[in-house]
Amino acid sequence: MTKLTPSAAGTFAIAPTPFHDDGRIDEKSIDRLTDFYAEVGCDGVTVLGILGEAPKLDAAEAEQVAIRFVKRAKNMQIIVGVSAPGFATMRALALKSMDAGAAGVMIAPPPNLRTDDQIIGYFKQAVEAIGTDVPWVLQDYPLTLSVVFTPSVIRKIVMDNPSCVMLKHEDWPGLEKISALRGFQKDGSLRPLSILTGNGGLFLDFEMERGADGAMTGYAFPELLIDVVRLSKEGRRDAAHDLFDAHLPLIRYEQQPGAGLAVRKYVLQKRGVIASSAQRKPGANITATAKSEVDYLLARVARLDKRANLQPLSSAAG
Amino acid sequence: MTKLTPSAAGTFAIAPTPFHDDGRIDEKSIDRLTDFYAEVGCDGVTVLGILGEAPKLDAAEAEQVAIRFVKRAKNMQIIVGVSAPGFATMRALALKSMDAGAAGVMIAPPPNLRTDDQIIGYFKQAVEAIGTDVPWVLQDYPLTLSVVFTPSVIRKIVMDNPSCVMLKHEDWPGLEKISALRGFQKDGSLRPLSILTGNGGLFLDFEMERGADGAMTGYAFPELLIDVVRLSKEGRRDAAHDLFDAHLPLIRYEQQPGAGLAVRKYVLQKRGVIASSAQRKPGANITATAKSEVDYLLARVARLDKRANLQPLSSAAG
Amino acid sequence: MTKLTPSAAGTFAIAPTPFHDDGRIDEKSIDRLTDFYAEVGCDGVTVLGILGEAPKLDAAEAEQVAIRFVKRAKNMQIIVGVSAPGFATMRALALKSMDAGAAGVMIAPPPNLRTDDQIIGYFKQAVEAIGTDVPWVLQDYPLTLSVVFTPSVIRKIVMDNPSCVMLKHEDWPGLEKISALRGFQKDGSLRPLSILTGNGGLFLDFEMERGADGAMTGYAFPELLIDVVRLSKEGRRDAAHDLFDAHLPLIRYEQQPGAGLAVRKYVLQKRGVIASSAQRKPGANITATAKSEVDYLLARVARLDKRANLQPLSSAAG
Amino acid sequence: MTKLTPSAAGTFAIAPTPFHDDGRIDEKSIDRLTDFYAEVGCDGVTVLGILGEAPKLDAAEAEQVAIRFVKRAKNMQIIVGVSAPGFATMRALALKSMDAGAAGVMIAPPPNLRTDDQIIGYFKQAVEAIGTDVPWVLQDYPLTLSVVFTPSVIRKIVMDNPSCVMLKHEDWPGLEKISALRGFQKDGSLRPLSILTGNGGLFLDFEMERGADGAMTGYAFPELLIDVVRLSKEGRRDAAHDLFDAHLPLIRYEQQPGAGLAVRKYVLQKRGVIASSAQRKPGANITATAKSEVDYLLARVARLDKRANLQPLSSAAG
Repeated sequence: MTKLTPSAAGTFAIAPTPFHDDGRIDEKSIDRLTDFYAEVGCDGVTVLGILGEAPKLDAAEAEQVAIRFVKRAKNMQIIVGVSAPGFATMRALALKSMDAGAAGVMIAPPPNLRTDDQIIGYFKQAVEAIGTDVPWVLQDYPLTLSVVFTPSVIRKIVMDNPSCVMLKHEDWPGLEKISALRGFQKDGSLRPLSILTGNGGLFLDFEMERGADGAMTGYAFPELLIDVVRLSKEGRRDAAHDLFDAHLPLIRYEQQPGAGLAVRKYVLQKRGVIASSAQRKPGANITATAKSEVDYLLARVARLDKRANLQPLSSAAG
Repeated sequence: MTKLTPSAAGTFAIAPTPFHDDGRIDEKSIDRLTDFYAEVGCDGVTVLGILGEAPKLDAAEAEQVAIRFVKRAKNMQIIVGVSAPGFATMRALALKSMDAGAAGVMIAPPPNLRTDDQIIGYFKQAVEAIGTDVPWVLQDYPLTLSVVFTPSVIRKIVMDNPSCVMLKHEDWPGLEKISALRGFQKDGSLRPLSILTGNGGLFLDFEMERGADGAMTGYAFPELLIDVVRLSKEGRRDAAHDLFDAHLPLIRYEQQPGAGLAVRKYVLQKRGVIASSAQRKPGANITATAKSEVDYLLARVARLDKRANLQPLSSAAG
Repeated sequence: MTKLTPSAAGTFAIAPTPFHDDGRIDEKSIDRLTDFYAEVGCDGVTVLGILGEAPKLDAAEAEQVAIRFVKRAKNMQIIVGVSAPGFATMRALALKSMDAGAAGVMIAPPPNLRTDDQIIGYFKQAVEAIGTDVPWVLQDYPLTLSVVFTPSVIRKIVMDNPSCVMLKHEDWPGLEKISALRGFQKDGSLRPLSILTGNGGLFLDFEMERGADGAMTGYAFPELLIDVVRLSKEGRRDAAHDLFDAHLPLIRYEQQPGAGLAVRKYVLQKRGVIASSAQRKPGANITATAKSEVDYLLARVARLDKRANLQPLSSAAG
Repeated sequence: MTKLTPSAAGTFAIAPTPFHDDGRIDEKSIDRLTDFYAEVGCDGVTVLGILGEAPKLDAAEAEQVAIRFVKRAKNMQIIVGVSAPGFATMRALALKSMDAGAAGVMIAPPPNLRTDDQIIGYFKQAVEAIGTDVPWVLQDYPLTLSVVFTPSVIRKIVMDNPSCVMLKHEDWPGLEKISALRGFQKDGSLRPLSILTGNGGLFLDFEMERGADGAMTGYAFPELLIDVVRLSKEGRRDAAHDLFDAHLPLIRYEQQPGAGLAVRKYVLQKRGVIASSAQRKPGANITATAKSEVDYLLARVARLDKRANLQPLSSAAG
């Protein structure tokens, strides 16, 4: 697998970690999920992110999941989330993932960082821990992580650490931040950097127009992300928005903090991609009412995008 | 003006506070804004909420703004946000607002509350401060206020305080909370309570189906809120969603924390309702790029909803 | 009253706001408290700080309290805490206090500030609001305010705003911060700045040795603060520590977050300085067990410092 | 080793994890530290707590450290901190520790818990994860963990989970909480529960008088904790306070958040108990000035307690 570079672009799916109903890791579903992402045309997959329930795995399991994805992925690049409360754990997973062939790793800040210096210092130490030769993605996700990066702090981290090749952008609001970073590059103060956007895709339409290189998020229809990224790059603005808007009611429903993963796993199960929608404890359930709401949204999306016209669950999963 | 009761329903607009470009309160725009809400059919207006920049006003100004809205509103009910760091300030504004004819007040929790007992105790003391005869709205908005109410805590507050007549529901995710509260009423453990939903309207379609009585939020097209509430109550599910989905791209854009108010004021200014989109310091600006994005969204909404077909700003504001 | 300058030094007492048992402001106790601070030799008094229950006062009351202290103080400098959720309220109180003769004002950051730029920008706007001619104290109190200032950010604020004349230092741990700021002055990057330390005096012994100019805190024996500041400036290290250590068990007891104010008011009442130890709601009570613990600590302090040998409460307050 | 029960009492030292200067685990110092705790008379030792830099160890290292302490401890009970972001990691360490002979485990809540139900639910799931036969200690430490337990919530957790045998009490302020819990036991609503107190020992004098069973904290002179616990139990109040007060200046210095561990390791190194005061990254350093302050405090303590009369570092560590 080729290593991640600042020229990375397109759509990287954020993969959930499939579990059996009893909480064991479902390796067959990992394989099927990896194949699915490859078939629909993802450029890469990010595993063991926040939505991948990474903290619920012990160290051996995390390694096992990462390697399983990497081995199955063939040409697709796999990025492994290695965020951890301590650098020893981060380093161990990073090295094992890279040895297995991962394209790079992703690091989120611990929630107690406050000042600019604390943030900059943390990533300097993280890079020392994993080694300066491991390409890595900086995750900027204040809603969940409660750490706020200014554009200047991101620039400082990127310029201090040549191995930082990508920003996973999911500040909210975040459009002006993309413009600010691209502005830094125009004035020569920031080197090339891939910017892929998250937040469930909720602003992907305009993020692309602001200069993002693509999407990195877990919406259960990665095909939509791929299409919007492509249409936007082709300059087909209205077409990109038309398709995006058709999915937006479901994107919005899936992007509910805490509850969203259950929706996502439910849809992926309906699509026949994973065998069970189970989460490890502590996890959020999806109620019967919520399922029927998702089904209704799927039916509405399907009026414009046939790919949302899912078979009933029994046959799809059979 | 009639006082607020648990049978309140429909659409209550959350009003921004209009300022002149130099930061003075714009009383003429208050009048025009009030008339606008009445003309489009709002059932009420909530003033001096979080989006109303209430903390930026001093005590005399807050009173002045509240009374101006109340006096102008005629038949529409006005709810006055009286949240304050201390009970003396809260009490003073509540009493003056009610004397002027307000229908009720709204109280949000201070951000330092953590335990269930702290939350319940706080509202007990707040009610003692404003008096048990003042109808009030409980604001449940964890994203901004960082205080988390369980359904049981809401029930306890409502049952302990007969003057609590309404919940401004804006937890996120929040659909199951509406179902839980309506379930409490079915099992007889919760008395009648109006539930109006906020969050910029982002989930209004399903909130109505879960049992909400209406909307209380500041989306710059209250007509849309009114229509979705009505269609949903009439059982016209597809029609409600069709109209909602047409506006969703703009609703989503307006519901960006911190940045949303600038969008809202920009649209209301474009609609000719307020003279200036200025915010008092510290306030977020709206960039030229963001304005063009909003204009683009408005044009797209207008394909399905002619009310979004706004005149160019120069003539509308003239 | 002379205005506050960067050469301010000595002991500034943080004054509680005296209330009657029913919650009304007790103006006679304000007078007696002011006289008491003058008699024991305080260089100044800070009113309406966090421990002064400032947020519980409405705007008119805050003004009334500030002016009462100022008028009574004669030669002692009065600093008025003007922190507020909005600049209109801050400005109003600052101007009225300065008009009445206050020496300066104190400003704490709102708790939502995170990045260095947000902090620096906030104080820039605050200075614009109160006017550049009003001397002010920067309050650095992360434990309660959850805003973290690096030494560099403090330097930037001080250098950007000539009217900032003093730091109320109460970071915890904070000794190295004093050394860092004094180091900035040695290398010429920071102009003269008064540093008075808070935190209930818990580290006053070493703070003086690190370069603090004095104490600004509310320990119920300001005489102790005055003596330790003086002994330390005279280079009598052991004597300073001996006296400090005699009081430390009580200092420590008084410096309990939330509960400390009740202890402080109880002791000041025992000393006959204020008529009632009542706090406005919501306030913490002091239990009978806690009172007996404080009495025990006072008796122990009195073995080395006769000033702690208080009369029984009945006669002292009579 | 006997398992932990609700009748546990006395002094449990919170052990730091000794590292070599290069960050590797120092097993010889673990042995010497364990022997030291036994020699001075500790009833038990808690390892891999927050002060034990537990999050900086990877899973294999955590297991290695826990087992090393357990094997060396002989008659002293070892409690292993097993707090982790996920239950799989918690379970793995708990089982391995208990298999090796640990007396019990300690669990702190993750910082995102807010409501009473969330807290209660979390510990229910944690007990399911580690098994209902593993005795465990509930850690109540809001200052660092930002989770607030009411006495009622603690009671509910204890009554729901028979394997919860001890509370590590370090709320601040916390004296009334001890009284409340002991009151629950008097009214029959709470079963027997060991309460050991932390917070560096800063309130140990009064905590014992309020009903604590002993101390569980990491002050570098566990002898002092042991003596105060004993004197207090013997009813020798003044003697307990006299000894406590002699150490309080140093206790206070060591109880600085973040900075305290460096002080503690420095003193333990001076005492010849651990070979290096190094912390794993990211860790706080101790400056030369701070070292001289600690040396000064030690010399002052030694006037009343000869055990603080330490040899110069070179000979002690030689």
